[in-house]
Amino acid sequence: MKPPSGVPGFRFAGLACGIKESGRKDLALIVSERPATAAAIFTRNRIKSPTVVSGRTRVARGRLQAVVANSGNANACTGPGGLRDSEAMCVETARHLGMDARHVLPSSTGIIGVPLPMETIARGIAAAVAALAPDALQDAAEAIMTTDNGPKTAAASCRIGGRTVHVAGIAKGAGMIAPNMATMLCYVLTDADVAPAALRPMLRRAADETFHAITVDGDTSTNDTVLCLANGVAGNPRITRGGEGEDVLERALTRVMKELALKVVADGEGTKKLVEVQVDGARTVAEARRVAFTVANSKLVKTAFFGEDPNVGRLMMAVGNAGVPVVEETIDITLGGVRVVRRGVAVGTREAAATKVMQRPSFVVRISLGMGEARTSVWTSDLGHEYIRINSDYRT
Amino acid sequence: MKPPSGVPGFRFAGLACGIKESGRKDLALIVSERPATAAAIFTRNRIKSPTVVSGRTRVARGRLQAVVANSGNANACTGPGGLRDSEAMCVETARHLGMDARHVLPSSTGIIGVPLPMETIARGIAAAVAALAPDALQDAAEAIMTTDNGPKTAAASCRIGGRTVHVAGIAKGAGMIAPNMATMLCYVLTDADVAPAALRPMLRRAADETFHAITVDGDTSTNDTVLCLANGVAGNPRITRGGEGEDVLERALTRVMKELALKVVADGEGTKKLVEVQVDGARTVAEARRVAFTVANSKLVKTAFFGEDPNVGRLMMAVGNAGVPVVEETIDITLGGVRVVRRGVAVGTREAAATKVMQRPSFVVRISLGMGEARTSVWTSDLGHEYIRINSDYRT
Repeated sequence: MKPPSGVPGFRFAGLACGIKESGRKDLALIVSERPATAAAIFTRNRIKSPTVVSGRTRVARGRLQAVVANSGNANACTGPGGLRDSEAMCVETARHLGMDARHVLPSSTGIIGVPLPMETIARGIAAAVAALAPDALQDAAEAIMTTDNGPKTAAASCRIGGRTVHVAGIAKGAGMIAPNMATMLCYVLTDADVAPAALRPMLRRAADETFHAITVDGDTSTNDTVLCLANGVAGNPRITRGGEGEDVLERALTRVMKELALKVVADGEGTKKLVEVQVDGARTVAEARRVAFTVANSKLVKTAFFGEDPNVGRLMMAVGNAGVPVVEETIDITLGGVRVVRRGVAVGTREAAATKVMQRPSFVVRISLGMGEARTSVWTSDLGHEYIRINSDYRT
Repeated sequence: MKPPSGVPGFRFAGLACGIKESGRKDLALIVSERPATAAAIFTRNRIKSPTVVSGRTRVARGRLQAVVANSGNANACTGPGGLRDSEAMCVETARHLGMDARHVLPSSTGIIGVPLPMETIARGIAAAVAALAPDALQDAAEAIMTTDNGPKTAAASCRIGGRTVHVAGIAKGAGMIAPNMATMLCYVLTDADVAPAALRPMLRRAADETFHAITVDGDTSTNDTVLCLANGVAGNPRITRGGEGEDVLERALTRVMKELALKVVADGEGTKKLVEVQVDGARTVAEARRVAFTVANSKLVKTAFFGEDPNVGRLMMAVGNAGVPVVEETIDITLGGVRVVRRGVAVGTREAAATKVMQRPSFVVRISLGMGEARTSVWTSDLGHEYIRINSDYRT
C-alpha cells in the first residue's frame, strides 16, 4: 500500500534546520486550516520535559490548530529555561501562521539535558512555514525521527453519516518504549467532526490497546505524546460521546494507532523480531498485563528471542516473577502454536518445532494461566547486539 | 589474600560426574562432622524448582548436616518427577554418609525443563563422598558454577567468648541476579555455636544488606538459595537471640556475604563494571530501594554504563519511572563525586570529568532526592555485548 501523503484540511512540513549535527531533518510542522478538536495522552514518567508540561496545558482546552515538533533535543532536565523555550517555539510558530499561540502544541525528542538551540529553531520554523504543503506528511514523519530506521505512517478511512472520513498518523520511537509510551511521539490526524468530550475517551481506549501494549526496553521517556487532531473538514454530523459514528471512528483510530505501535516495536532499537505475548486464563486484565509485561521485558527472555532459543525455563521464570500468584501446575505455554509447557512441565520433544517458529521474524508466545477468563496481548522485541551498539554509542 | 580452603568441622568435595557436556565440575558436597544449626532464604519466584520445595521443608527443622548440589541442570519445570529426583539425591547422599536423609539439603542450578540424569548423579555422589576433604572448599565452589567466570569464595574470623570463630562461604551466580537473589546459590559455613532462633533473623538481615541489594539483569530464578550452617565446633558459648556474640557473628556473616554478593555482580554475565547506586534523601527505605533498583535495572542506564557515557538524561528518566513521587527540582546526582545534576538540571560543564569516572571499572552513582532522610545502596553492572552473547548462546 502506498504510504499516506496527507489528510484533508491539514498541511505539513519537515526539514533540517540544524539541530542534528548529522544534517538530517529535525523540525516538523503540522497545521490545520481551522482550529481542530484535540485530545492527547502524555508520559507517566515523574520527570517530564517542560515541553510536555507546556503541551498538557494547551491541549486541556480541547482545541489546537498546529503542532511544532523538533527532534535531536528533548528539552528535558533543562530547568526553568526549558519551559520558556517550549513556549517560545509556540509563539514563534503562531506569529508566522497568524494564529493564537495557545493553539500550538510543542514537542521535542532527542538527547536530554541540553538547552534547545533557539535561534536555530526560530530560523527552522520560518522555513517550515514557507514549506507547508498538503501532501508533505512523509516529510513531517521523517523530521520527528531520532534512532528510527525510517518514517512511520499509517492511514485508514471510514464512512460516517454519508461522508468519507480520513485518518492518518505519524509516529517516531524505537527505544525507551514501555507500557507508558516512552520516547514516543504520535500524531493522529482526521478530518472527522468530533466533540472534545467524545475524542478524549476514544483516544484513551485506542491507546490502551496499542501504545500502552508495547515494550522495547521497559524504559519510559520524559517526552511521550500521543495527540489526535480532528478538524471537521469531512463535514460529517458531529460525533458526540456515545453518539452515532463514535464506534466507527474509534475503530479507524485504533487501526491506525495499532499499525504505528507495531511499527515502533518492529523498529525497536537494533531488534529483528516482533513478538506478541498473549496471556489468557488470568483472573483480571491487570494481572494478565503484569504477567505479559514481565515476560515481554525480561532481559533473559528477550536475549532468548534473539538467540532463537525456545528456552521455556526463562519463560516460566518470568511468569513466576510477575508478582501474580500463578499456579505452576495449571500453566500451558505455546510458541507459534507449538506446545512447549503442559501443566507447568517442559515438553522436551517439541524443541525442534519451537526453534523453527522462533526463526520467523514474528511469532506469538501464548501463556495460559488456567486461573480465570481475563486475557491481554502485548508486543515486544528481541534484545541483541544492535541494541547495545546503538544505546552505548547514541551520544558519542 | 589466599582464598579460604575450609572451615573447622566441615569436609568438602567437588568433581565432574557427567551432567555438563563440557566435562567441567558439576557436583558439590558439603558435610559437617555433626548436625549443624541451619537457616536459609529461598527464591521469591512463584515458580520454584522442586529442589527448593524440598530444601525448604528440610531446613525448617533448623538442623542439617550436609548439602548436595549439582550444576548444569536446575531441575525446574520438571513436574512431579522433579520432586522425587531431588529427594532421591538426599537419600543417596545420606546412605553413603550414614546419616538421616532429612539432614541433607539438595540444590540444583543450570538449565530449566530437563529431568535430572539420576544415574549419573548417583555415581557422582558416591565418588564425591569418597573424595571428601577438609581443605577442598575451592573444589565445591567450582562445582556449583554455571556461567560464572571463576569460583567465588570469601572468609572472615572473629572472637566470641574467648574462642576464634571461622566463617567461610562459597557462591555461584552471574545472571538472573535480581533483588530476590536469582540463580544464586550461596553456602555460608561457620564453626560458631548458635541457636536456630538466633541464626534465622541474622541471616535475613545480612541478606537484606547483601544479596537482596544486587542486580545484574532484574530477572529472578526459580532456584535461589542462601544457606548458613553453624556446626558449633568452635566451642563458643552458644549464641542466642539478642545474646552475647550475636552482633559479632552477624558482622562476620555480613562481611562474607557482602564480598560474595559483590563478586556475583562483578562477575555478572559479560559485564565489566561494578556500579554502586546510592539513593539518599528518600522518604522511606522502600522508596529509596525502588528508585535505586529502577536505575540499576534500566537497560538504557546499563548500556550507558557500558558505553562510559555520562548520560544524565537516562538517569533522570529512570528516577522518574520508579513510581515514587519524586520532585524534579530537588534532585541532585553525582557520578564518582562529580555533580552532573543540580536541582533537576543537567550540569553540562562537568561531562569530561564524569566520563573519566565512568571509565573506571567501579564507581558510585549518588542520587539525592531531597525529600527525606532514608537511604540505601544497591550494586549493579553494565549491559554490554558479552551479556547478549552469553545469554543468546547459553544452551546452543
